[in-house]
Amino acid sequence: MIKKHYLLSPGPTPIPDKVLSAAAQPIIHHRSKEFSNILKQVMEDLKYVFQTRQDVFVLSSSGTGAMEAAVVNTLSPGDKVITINGGKFGHRWSNICSAYELNVMEIEVEWGEVCSPEYLASALKSNPGTKAVFSTLCETSTGTIYDIQGYAKVVATSATILIVDGISGIGAASCPMDEWNVDVLISGSQKSFMTPPGLSYIAFSDKAWKQVKNSTLPKYYFSANSAKESLSRETTPWTPATSLVIQQQKAFEIIREIGLDNLIKHHRILGNAARAGVKAIGLEMLSKNPGNILTAVKVPEGIDGNKLIKTMQKKYKVYIAGAQSPHTGEFFRIGHLGYSGGFDIITALSGLEMTLMELNYNFKTGQSLSAAQKILKENWS
Amino acid sequence: MIKKHYLLSPGPTPIPDKVLSAAAQPIIHHRSKEFSNILKQVMEDLKYVFQTRQDVFVLSSSGTGAMEAAVVNTLSPGDKVITINGGKFGHRWSNICSAYELNVMEIEVEWGEVCSPEYLASALKSNPGTKAVFSTLCETSTGTIYDIQGYAKVVATSATILIVDGISGIGAASCPMDEWNVDVLISGSQKSFMTPPGLSYIAFSDKAWKQVKNSTLPKYYFSANSAKESLSRETTPWTPATSLVIQQQKAFEIIREIGLDNLIKHHRILGNAARAGVKAIGLEMLSKNPGNILTAVKVPEGIDGNKLIKTMQKKYKVYIAGAQSPHTGEFFRIGHLGYSGGFDIITALSGLEMTLMELNYNFKTGQSLSAAQKILKENWS
Repeated sequence: MIKKHYLLSPGPTPIPDKVLSAAAQPIIHHRSKEFSNILKQVMEDLKYVFQTRQDVFVLSSSGTGAMEAAVVNTLSPGDKVITINGGKFGHRWSNICSAYELNVMEIEVEWGEVCSPEYLASALKSNPGTKAVFSTLCETSTGTIYDIQGYAKVVATSATILIVDGISGIGAASCPMDEWNVDVLISGSQKSFMTPPGLSYIAFSDKAWKQVKNSTLPKYYFSANSAKESLSRETTPWTPATSLVIQQQKAFEIIREIGLDNLIKHHRILGNAARAGVKAIGLEMLSKNPGNILTAVKVPEGIDGNKLIKTMQKKYKVYIAGAQSPHTGEFFRIGHLGYSGGFDIITALSGLEMTLMELNYNFKTGQSLSAAQKILKENWS
Repeated sequence: MIKKHYLLSPGPTPIPDKVLSAAAQPIIHHRSKEFSNILKQVMEDLKYVFQTRQDVFVLSSSGTGAMEAAVVNTLSPGDKVITINGGKFGHRWSNICSAYELNVMEIEVEWGEVCSPEYLASALKSNPGTKAVFSTLCETSTGTIYDIQGYAKVVATSATILIVDGISGIGAASCPMDEWNVDVLISGSQKSFMTPPGLSYIAFSDKAWKQVKNSTLPKYYFSANSAKESLSRETTPWTPATSLVIQQQKAFEIIREIGLDNLIKHHRILGNAARAGVKAIGLEMLSKNPGNILTAVKVPEGIDGNKLIKTMQKKYKVYIAGAQSPHTGEFFRIGHLGYSGGFDIITALSGLEMTLMELNYNFKTGQSLSAAQKILKENWS
């Protein structure tokens, strides 16, 4: 048999052919009018998906670079901050803030659990003078979606700013930056944006820009003021990853055609189908509040989690993701973001069923497929 | 007439078709064995062009990101440093060091001039306790090549480290890192490496690693220790720009086939041809010590420099670069690095001659072409 490869990880995600082939175009100069026009269009499209009237800057880095940009541009040495850590990426906020010697108060949340806005409100109350609250929109390590709207309401009444990692979330989950009063929002090219990894995106609210003015943490490559200043010349301060920007423009053509609301609905259907599928064969979700970006599923008792992932990846070429340290082997993650369709869910579940048969898990085969298929069929329009 | 587009800027440079089309391959996961093998190969190839036995790390950023990485990983607040500033990129070292509140002693060199090793030695003598000297291998804003071997000899006898920006230089100019005792060497994908922009490269000598251990400047995304630690798992700390890494691997296949020595010779021939060409029509080089990466040529008296560049770029579609601020309009730069061939020099000179005719410059047409052609013909093997 020819074994085709299926990428079903929560980033990088599959890319439309039209976007892939755009990278094979000859290189144009990054200071040319031609490239400036592409960059301008991408920045307009970014405003559309961020749902903001603010400039959304294009950084040539992974999402972690944009996270660092959010920290170094808004804060000063010794500033008090609160981070919500319910997984690997929430924890990364704490790590970056600690690297810059900020005064970090971490709200530790068990993997898969959420932090309520009320809890955040009480944490803020007991930590007066907190300059920023850091959260994740969708915690990619657990598949959990956080109540950003709730956090924003809590934070909006104070001088504190709310900084949100929307790397895997934006485009697949609703997070209207301006309407909800998110102060710094970041994302990356390789998730719902249907583009290869290498670009990250960041926007600041008026309230955040005021903090940018007073921020004294050192910065150069990630300086928001440099990015803002270059914008007047329709360019970026440093040579951008031009071919990725060109690809992002092509991907936005597709996203615009679908429409943001439809894209979010699409992800909801995929998420519902994935969850219904795994439940139908007796598996349990890791997350108490799963989003539609990925589905994290607990490895059932008696099954070797590492073997499960390895079998799916190597034998069936269905590239799902395992759990990250310190929970390796305990659960697995099926991505359904970016350029993912209904039959990708069917493929993932079929690969999962074949693997579970091999590992002697006791279940009625085909059940996950028909459960998922039912939801896809009902919503197929 | 169909007006074809020719990219002749000192970065980004033209990319071989084989490298361009590699970006159109479907995305693979960055934590897969398949990608690890590609990354390992690229890191081996980087050692080959850096001429070092040290690890050369792949960063997802422009070259400026690698410059920042060189600073934040080796230094601590208040450290005394010397920067050699003979153009825009030398000046960038000063800017980055100042952004991190280092104690910067800048050797200001006129654009196109060089700094002698003797001058550096005396500057070091009058600044005891200097932690690092920053230089550029090829100053892209002026086309000047610096005496890195000479600087390294001066610095090697002290506790100071030598940090070299080889972004446009490496691969086109000789700079054997280990043999010359360069302590930190950086480069980028979009210059002689025949790959689109978006990746940068950095290596540290044993002496530099010792300074990394003691460095207390804040860092996260650009942390050398994180990169080193991830290497044991054959990966990068953050999601890398996978498609660019795959392209870089393809480009290295071409570079390995040519061989580094031949590649450097090739650039020497192109440089000789370009210089002979412009001299033959009475034009003057900006640089007192021009390298073979680009040729910076003074705009002759009575000619509008901005019009010259605009005409070449817009009318003849020969995309050479102008001079950067504060010397805009005073000279222009013909790039001959990366995937550039002999006839690209002929094209550049022909576009230049046609433009100069249009601007009523007094010269004997065809002279630059035959002068360049003579050198190319003699060396055509």
